[in-house]
Amino acid sequence: MSRTAQRRDALRATAAAQGLDAVLVTNLLNVRYLTGFTGSNGVLLVRTDGADLFGTDGRYTTQAGTQVPDVELLVDRATVAALARAAVQRGIGRLGYESHDLTVDGLAALEKVLADAGGAELSSVRRAVEAQREIKDDEEIDSLRRACTVADQALAELATEGALRPGRTELEVGRELDARMLQLGAEAPSFETIVAAGANSAIPHHRPDSTVLRDGDLLKLDFGATVEGYHSDMTRTVVLGHAADWQREIYELVAASQSAGRAALAVGADVVAVDAAARQVIVDAGHGEHFSHGLGHGVGLEIHEAPGIGQLGAGTLAAGMAVTVEPGVYLPGHGGVRIEDTLIVTDDEPELLTLTSKELLVL
Amino acid sequence: MSRTAQRRDALRATAAAQGLDAVLVTNLLNVRYLTGFTGSNGVLLVRTDGADLFGTDGRYTTQAGTQVPDVELLVDRATVAALARAAVQRGIGRLGYESHDLTVDGLAALEKVLADAGGAELSSVRRAVEAQREIKDDEEIDSLRRACTVADQALAELATEGALRPGRTELEVGRELDARMLQLGAEAPSFETIVAAGANSAIPHHRPDSTVLRDGDLLKLDFGATVEGYHSDMTRTVVLGHAADWQREIYELVAASQSAGRAALAVGADVVAVDAAARQVIVDAGHGEHFSHGLGHGVGLEIHEAPGIGQLGAGTLAAGMAVTVEPGVYLPGHGGVRIEDTLIVTDDEPELLTLTSKELLVL
Repeated sequence: MSRTAQRRDALRATAAAQGLDAVLVTNLLNVRYLTGFTGSNGVLLVRTDGADLFGTDGRYTTQAGTQVPDVELLVDRATVAALARAAVQRGIGRLGYESHDLTVDGLAALEKVLADAGGAELSSVRRAVEAQREIKDDEEIDSLRRACTVADQALAELATEGALRPGRTELEVGRELDARMLQLGAEAPSFETIVAAGANSAIPHHRPDSTVLRDGDLLKLDFGATVEGYHSDMTRTVVLGHAADWQREIYELVAASQSAGRAALAVGADVVAVDAAARQVIVDAGHGEHFSHGLGHGVGLEIHEAPGIGQLGAGTLAAGMAVTVEPGVYLPGHGGVRIEDTLIVTDDEPELLTLTSKELLVL
Repeated sequence: MSRTAQRRDALRATAAAQGLDAVLVTNLLNVRYLTGFTGSNGVLLVRTDGADLFGTDGRYTTQAGTQVPDVELLVDRATVAALARAAVQRGIGRLGYESHDLTVDGLAALEKVLADAGGAELSSVRRAVEAQREIKDDEEIDSLRRACTVADQALAELATEGALRPGRTELEVGRELDARMLQLGAEAPSFETIVAAGANSAIPHHRPDSTVLRDGDLLKLDFGATVEGYHSDMTRTVVLGHAADWQREIYELVAASQSAGRAALAVGADVVAVDAAARQVIVDAGHGEHFSHGLGHGVGLEIHEAPGIGQLGAGTLAAGMAVTVEPGVYLPGHGGVRIEDTLIVTDDEPELLTLTSKELLVL
């Protein structure tokens, strides 16, 4: 049985437990997760009796046949409406839907179609598929591993070639990093690549601009690659030319915090406690106010997904979760350091997917 | 007055005409359009009295200050809730919202916040901002022009360097095209680049794979660049080595259809009639069934936006609209040709933004 069929079965069990006859999955990433379909229009009806139905439009007939060979196909330009109509015609009385994805207008249209077709009762399944997606299976972990390898390799090549040197601009470095990841097999960068030099490195989410890299700068690179839809996420901070004492000091501090955060990644650990384990190191050094964001987040088909690991998070870690650990210390006007890895929570030590060294690199 | 301030004033007028005190803009592209903000979390309250409020979270405090200097800033992690609360506190009684963007869960949360804050009446403004966005101003057209130039230049360079030759794979060509666009200043490809060789060219939306380009193949390239958030969209079909008669024949047919479609782009023209002008050429040649999609679509901050130009479209063209014209003839199992430009509708001739030659290129 394919991984996607297994995932549909898991959703089927959730739907049955909620007394539903079927779930209409409209979130496109959830549809991809449950079917493997990568087009821009796809809707899935998962039925508790197993007779699922996949809907798309005429642009994707061939692609749907290849990517979703094991689900009955319905081709219609008005995909959600056609699938809802088919559901009622095939006897679905209680239909689950994704209230976090469907818009207000979308729900109104769906209610009208259902009523016109003879009626069905709607009930939200909330984030049932997202909850499944928190635990990655082996195929997903393989994709994440490849995505992390592409990012590792792109950075290694640029560093070796001397691309990270004084005189270049943030924007040039960012574009080169993006282009290299594509050459190495990424479908796209995971998000808008952050390249932040000198004082800009103190801005957590700086957009690369025409700032010129200078000798003595901290250079913060936060970037990732997308492979088979899965996102890698890594931050490394290097120093150009020579490192000043204050730079070494905050680097070592962030590295120690990051190490403590990684060590706290265990099955059953509370996400607030994981954040605290890393944060305490920075607080103890008197820099608590300079670590202004959460410790990390889940990563997968989205760059940010559940679980959030932070002071406002909730829940515990489980084996198979893919998460980032990314503390930072930012000294406004001077510079900042962030160190971030992507890891898999396991019953044993967490598996590190981003393998670039975390020793302070002076280029 | 900045372009973004002018756009907010136009929305303000729409809101006033609907008897609203303010509009809560949650669609992130609409927020970008109205403010210039490019971060991943931004919400805008446009008030009829002019005292607008822009909300984001702590990651973007600096960026919001730079990109949105002329709107009062509210920083809060729970951005929509904070903005809604502020609206009620500042006397907003009738609040417009985007029912095509806000999810069912989002509306429930918004209703609760408003009720807790003392109450306000909600009313959908539908796609009011999208309607504004159909007509591009000069800044937007400049961005589109640059995006089209990047795509033109990337293709020209690859063709000159011999990158489009037998022996290479679709995936290699696609990645090279993407990387070249980034080097030339694109923020990203506009969408997943289509490279389709031989029989694959008959699949309208083929995903590039390991198919090897061969002598005598039709090679269809559908791609674009994003510059300042604006998307270009162009398709060219070339032949490798030598062109067979049937290939020349459908190429000339599609070129004639595309020319007819471009000629029909006039202020006041009905979108169904524009589609028909191009389609009739293909129907007359007996290939009507092989042109299986609409003629074109609006393009801007999204790769597909209003107006749709097709048999199921509605409405008329206006000066300043940016649209594609992209007829195709697809012969299943053999090959297909599509030719697509991005153009601006004007009171005179349409302005062609994608300047790559449409003569049949034999490489």
